[in-house]
Amino acid sequence: MTDTLALLPAGIDTYRQPVVYMHEDCHICRAEGFAAQTRVRIDLRDRWVIATLNVVGRAGWLTADSAALSVSAWSALLARPGDRARFSHPEPALSTSRIRAKAYGERLSEADFASIIGDTLEHRLTDLELAAFITACAGERLADAETVALTRAMQAAGETLDWGGRTVLDKHCVGGLPGNRTTPLVVAIVAAAGELIPKTSSRAITSPAGTADTMEVMAPVTLDERALRRVVEAEGGCVIWGGALNLSPADDHFIQIERPLNFDSTGQMVASVLSKKAAAGSTHVLIDIPVGATAKVRSAEAADALVARFLQVSAPIGLRLAVHLSDGSAPVGRGIGPALEASDVLAVLRREADAPNDLREKALDLAGKLLDLAPGSVPGTGHARAVEMLDSGSAEAKFLAICSAQGGFTEPARAPHRVEIPAQSDGTISSIDNRVIARIAKLAGAPRQKVAGVQLVAQVGDRVCKGQPLYEIHAASPGEAAWARSYAERHADVFLIAEGPR
Amino acid sequence: MTDTLALLPAGIDTYRQPVVYMHEDCHICRAEGFAAQTRVRIDLRDRWVIATLNVVGRAGWLTADSAALSVSAWSALLARPGDRARFSHPEPALSTSRIRAKAYGERLSEADFASIIGDTLEHRLTDLELAAFITACAGERLADAETVALTRAMQAAGETLDWGGRTVLDKHCVGGLPGNRTTPLVVAIVAAAGELIPKTSSRAITSPAGTADTMEVMAPVTLDERALRRVVEAEGGCVIWGGALNLSPADDHFIQIERPLNFDSTGQMVASVLSKKAAAGSTHVLIDIPVGATAKVRSAEAADALVARFLQVSAPIGLRLAVHLSDGSAPVGRGIGPALEASDVLAVLRREADAPNDLREKALDLAGKLLDLAPGSVPGTGHARAVEMLDSGSAEAKFLAICSAQGGFTEPARAPHRVEIPAQSDGTISSIDNRVIARIAKLAGAPRQKVAGVQLVAQVGDRVCKGQPLYEIHAASPGEAAWARSYAERHADVFLIAEGPR
Repeated sequence: MTDTLALLPAGIDTYRQPVVYMHEDCHICRAEGFAAQTRVRIDLRDRWVIATLNVVGRAGWLTADSAALSVSAWSALLARPGDRARFSHPEPALSTSRIRAKAYGERLSEADFASIIGDTLEHRLTDLELAAFITACAGERLADAETVALTRAMQAAGETLDWGGRTVLDKHCVGGLPGNRTTPLVVAIVAAAGELIPKTSSRAITSPAGTADTMEVMAPVTLDERALRRVVEAEGGCVIWGGALNLSPADDHFIQIERPLNFDSTGQMVASVLSKKAAAGSTHVLIDIPVGATAKVRSAEAADALVARFLQVSAPIGLRLAVHLSDGSAPVGRGIGPALEASDVLAVLRREADAPNDLREKALDLAGKLLDLAPGSVPGTGHARAVEMLDSGSAEAKFLAICSAQGGFTEPARAPHRVEIPAQSDGTISSIDNRVIARIAKLAGAPRQKVAGVQLVAQVGDRVCKGQPLYEIHAASPGEAAWARSYAERHADVFLIAEGPR
Repeated sequence: MTDTLALLPAGIDTYRQPVVYMHEDCHICRAEGFAAQTRVRIDLRDRWVIATLNVVGRAGWLTADSAALSVSAWSALLARPGDRARFSHPEPALSTSRIRAKAYGERLSEADFASIIGDTLEHRLTDLELAAFITACAGERLADAETVALTRAMQAAGETLDWGGRTVLDKHCVGGLPGNRTTPLVVAIVAAAGELIPKTSSRAITSPAGTADTMEVMAPVTLDERALRRVVEAEGGCVIWGGALNLSPADDHFIQIERPLNFDSTGQMVASVLSKKAAAGSTHVLIDIPVGATAKVRSAEAADALVARFLQVSAPIGLRLAVHLSDGSAPVGRGIGPALEASDVLAVLRREADAPNDLREKALDLAGKLLDLAPGSVPGTGHARAVEMLDSGSAEAKFLAICSAQGGFTEPARAPHRVEIPAQSDGTISSIDNRVIARIAKLAGAPRQKVAGVQLVAQVGDRVCKGQPLYEIHAASPGEAAWARSYAERHADVFLIAEGPR
């Protein structure tokens, strides 16, 4: 009787959740009393993982003397075929008592949060336990002091970049607005103006494109800390994917639970954003909050509560913060999807005649406010400096230099398959549903297919006639174009068209 | 381009959670934007299920033009190999907004709970969403009025048995005490006394035996409503498995989430118990609450809060309720595990000289209180009636008659493999850890192996010498006996032995 089994890769992607597949006649299953959904600890050499058990029946593809691992479990153990691993019951995670305490309404300390985060990063907590934690902190259930404690614990669990005491500018958008790709423009303008702005960005989770996805169309974004420093010391700025840097690593785990639950917890959101900013070594941060009926923040009251929370928490964390409330009633720019958004960014930088003016104006507003926030700046001069950097071509040159430093600039490609979606009636466009248009872009293949997405032809306020194109679906394959079109045709109200004269 | 795929059984047991396995090159995966962990709706003929997607890589056992289903998904669809099913994005569950409202601290109505329960029963809610619901109701977050509303909604979601206006007695133990198998005794005594007690019981979820598991050693317990009525009309009582009857069916779903989270929500527990009792048509219910450091209810304060909640909620539901607080400091009886507990029950019924007296006394207490609760009884006479029924042999005869009516009586078998665990020191036994001793019984194979479990030899208060047996591990296989022994040897403190004279 041994407590080891031979490992093989199941080749099954269960995403973040490690799963182990064992045969129903497996002696360890039977002797340990493991049944489907049991949590099982697997030890291999100096590594271990806690996986969820799925039991494979007699007719299956697995023998009783081996165990198969999901992609995530296999890679966590650095397993090789034929390795024998040890199986046991995991010790219960100590932090579950803190999650329970929070569910019962107690206040948690920084040590409590650190314990929960440590267990999260070691996969000791189940997704159910993480969902309980997220729910217990939902709404307004985190006090300001708890949000500060959570932010500090999240930051401390990962790396913190050290920029030697210099002023480090940063911006962040709370999201929810398709096409709103201001970051590459703000970085180019602010770095051209001589400020330090080492921007780490995320990939899309539920949106058609994250900043990192869009930037990747034009330059490599997966850089380690050494490469990041080289780019920033040379050019003053960068736009890279933060995922490789282990900044506030628990955040990704929490987001994987928050997104499907669709909980807007202001405390968690503030801790998520500020822990990443503090870990990136930022000192002065501008937060962009788009407000609109189909944006993430839907009312002025919700925006006010969020702003108050951001300001309350940023001071103890040591961050200087400014907030920009922006119009979230419709997408910004014309492209939605990595390559289409990259084209918008380049059109603005190149001052092309048909560059989307809303994107240009918003980028100038944000860059101006960020320049005003920097110590030593003359208040109120930021916007003019931003306009000067953009219109003089300095921002364009800076952006190309940053792309070169990151590994080389590439011009965005165009999708081979395009479908026009026409207006169903005459009238004036009164709104565009951010959520539905984002969904159409995703069905077309964004962000997986860089060229895929939606190109807006008409905008809010435009007068259109029946049959005139409202937007164009871009796709890499005819199948994806057809799927997106079919969904679009069933959701003609994504553009609300008011009848009568403008 | 079609939205159907051929189905095959994956032969993977993911327990309650339906899972679909699709190839990474599958055209539906790609076109619909399905990625690992996406929720996918699968329609087959007039049935449908919402499953979680796991993606199988190119080297896997699945082709790109088919989809494999977990055991639960396969059986929910009544699929046959070669069936082609349709795949789509599920509509979002409407009740998620109610769960979110509760997480944010709003009060829910009966209609809100009914909506959550309906979506739960249709598998429209993810386990994460259920965990959020459980957490949002945790601690004292359900008001009494909400608990009443939840109880009513849970009952209304399933069947309700109708006993034609007669008095129907029932008992329930909130659990946590190994070996505490009073139910068959109480039913035999109360039915012998001429009262109606149609008892529906549950199987073990995390314990070494549920009442249904123990009863099944002696008689069939899986009866439909017609068979149940036949037994009860003939004998006045029964002890059957409630799982086949669709009484408060959402409860099982909630328990699957509550147990791993280990949340003691009094509101949820009360709604769970009372909705089942109301659905069973009970009119007068006795609740047994064992209180002890290693029981489910750990303090007198916790017990008082639970009792208050039970009493507040039972009246509006139309149940007459009595509560019995009992000693939860150690197991009751000597056997832990289905067959061993059945032997204890039979020893008491047969008035054997070595029958466990604590089990006998507790059963008489409960039966007496239940008889006192019945309308028309003379208060305070219940205990004497119970003693008379037991000592006269009426209860034994009634029990055998009930077993016959349920399908025939069987004598419990004995385990082929037994291991004695000796005391490590001299002294007096001061306590037995309910949780650890239950764990040892489960490692020995209970409840899966009916004969497996633990037989206590010594009890709290006994004086023992080093080397004297404390308990015996019973197992169906040498491997299971060895596993349980190894764990037992690492947890010698399951029996606390105080030094010195008694």
